[in-house]
Amino acid sequence: MTSYTAEIDAALASALNEFSAPGELYAPVHYLFEAGGKRVRPILTLLACETVGGDRRHAMAAAVAVELLHNFTLMHDDIMDRSPMRRGRPTVHTMYDENTAILSGDVMIGMAMRLLERSAQQAPDPLRVIRAFTTGLIEVCEGQSLDMSLAERHDVTVDEYFTMIDKKTAKLLEMSVAIGAIIAGATDAQLGHLTTFAREIGIAFQMQDDLLDLRGSEEFGKAPGGDIVEGKRTWLVLRTRDKARAAGPQMASCAAVVDDFFANNGLPRERVSEMAGCMRTLGVLDEAEAEIRRITEDAYDHLHTLPVSPAREALEDLASKLVVRTF
Amino acid sequence: MTSYTAEIDAALASALNEFSAPGELYAPVHYLFEAGGKRVRPILTLLACETVGGDRRHAMAAAVAVELLHNFTLMHDDIMDRSPMRRGRPTVHTMYDENTAILSGDVMIGMAMRLLERSAQQAPDPLRVIRAFTTGLIEVCEGQSLDMSLAERHDVTVDEYFTMIDKKTAKLLEMSVAIGAIIAGATDAQLGHLTTFAREIGIAFQMQDDLLDLRGSEEFGKAPGGDIVEGKRTWLVLRTRDKARAAGPQMASCAAVVDDFFANNGLPRERVSEMAGCMRTLGVLDEAEAEIRRITEDAYDHLHTLPVSPAREALEDLASKLVVRTF
Repeated sequence: MTSYTAEIDAALASALNEFSAPGELYAPVHYLFEAGGKRVRPILTLLACETVGGDRRHAMAAAVAVELLHNFTLMHDDIMDRSPMRRGRPTVHTMYDENTAILSGDVMIGMAMRLLERSAQQAPDPLRVIRAFTTGLIEVCEGQSLDMSLAERHDVTVDEYFTMIDKKTAKLLEMSVAIGAIIAGATDAQLGHLTTFAREIGIAFQMQDDLLDLRGSEEFGKAPGGDIVEGKRTWLVLRTRDKARAAGPQMASCAAVVDDFFANNGLPRERVSEMAGCMRTLGVLDEAEAEIRRITEDAYDHLHTLPVSPAREALEDLASKLVVRTF
Repeated sequence: MTSYTAEIDAALASALNEFSAPGELYAPVHYLFEAGGKRVRPILTLLACETVGGDRRHAMAAAVAVELLHNFTLMHDDIMDRSPMRRGRPTVHTMYDENTAILSGDVMIGMAMRLLERSAQQAPDPLRVIRAFTTGLIEVCEGQSLDMSLAERHDVTVDEYFTMIDKKTAKLLEMSVAIGAIIAGATDAQLGHLTTFAREIGIAFQMQDDLLDLRGSEEFGKAPGGDIVEGKRTWLVLRTRDKARAAGPQMASCAAVVDDFFANNGLPRERVSEMAGCMRTLGVLDEAEAEIRRITEDAYDHLHTLPVSPAREALEDLASKLVVRTF
């Protein structure tokens, strides 16, 4: 995988070099990329291309486009979420200003399209590449919109949570493999299996991310339960609410914890363990782990319909790292 | 021209209907379009298509895409410029909030691409359509970036002013005709003449706009010289500065007015006539009118290389309205 990352970083650096003036517009883009990144999405593009027998060099510009689109979402989401830090450095709107972060984010979509169209030329159906990208852009905006409006509501359903993470996280992974596969001329069946694989891995990844938050992270200096403190409507909280209510009087204390969580948009840090205790008692943690396992296994089943190849193995390896991580 | 506007508005309404949920994301887009607009750019797309012998129905989705892209720039520029009103109504970031205006603006690029790709299917070279759109998006971001940085500098050159209006205004008109012409399968020569025509009309339009500001507008309740009060680096101000300095001691009073303008980022309203007087005395107003005439005539020369047709006549008519307006 290291060689793929190096190839992507080289192609990315070369692409960024095409865009330098005006510096006020492009310097913030360079700044954001200087801080690195795991390049998960462009790797997915290259591997999906190879898994269906394509030449990854044809998908390299598209892989860079996918990474540019992902980073556009980061730059704009950071403004909306008022995030001060990203990848260990001040966010663009903090380092420069909000106007700059808006406009430099905007132009990244144009940069992405400029690169995408180069790879699209290699595809049997060029417009299908454009269409997949467009869908990704629209869905990720819808996902961010849902995420922002869910944060203000008390009656969020589990279905709404899934729609939100599907659009905000999973669809961009789906787009990443779709573009690589379409460039390689994948059949509709191959494309369907690869996109379902990526989408399910995305959903499992997000659920796992919510679960991992309960443990905190020494590496990133995160205390356990940050999502609970911040009032995030995770699957865990929503299921805890539904199960506590369904359980009736004997779970009244958990129902009260949940009510406080929604009423105050989060709980004070000293009450994180109370919420986590309810999640455990009500079986929500076990249920989450079982659900993540089920979705991940289904994802692998889809992947395994494709012929064995080093690229397919690498896709499975990448997925297992994404979903399991620190475990 | 009325029938073209009606066709565009119908296609736009139908396109907007495809995008309704989540309402938090799409309602602001609908809101912006409810206030109307002159539809200059989509009309250019349809007429360019017909001028080179194409069927404007093939370019209709692209025309809507062009209008969507234009309105994306309005929504984001209004945030950056802190503009409270647009088309007689509160701007989106004022009516909703800034996050909404950022995200709804973002998704408009996706909506535009969704429509563009439909027309691109009708083009002999679909990716060329995408490429023209991408260039328009990138250039308009660069233009807005230059506009923002010019507003803070004292040493702006006339060349920089032209680069800015070229990118911010003219290139989007150029893109509008390019897309229509490419869909119709224009030759490179036809495309070159049409894009030069549109670009020059765009530059003349902007210069005219700067000139008209000196007269103010009763219709829009604008007092004369708003640009001078706001400190806008127009061609008129830059030429007045250059000519006052070149003229030496006998124009010292005008040089002083210009210095005050730059030092204070604009002049108080009662000094507008002083600046306007310098513009007249130094021959800048005459020079501007001559320059606008020269550029417009060159634009028509390019248009006239194409065979006479009702569409070509309509293009000329539209251009003459754009550049001359209230005169």
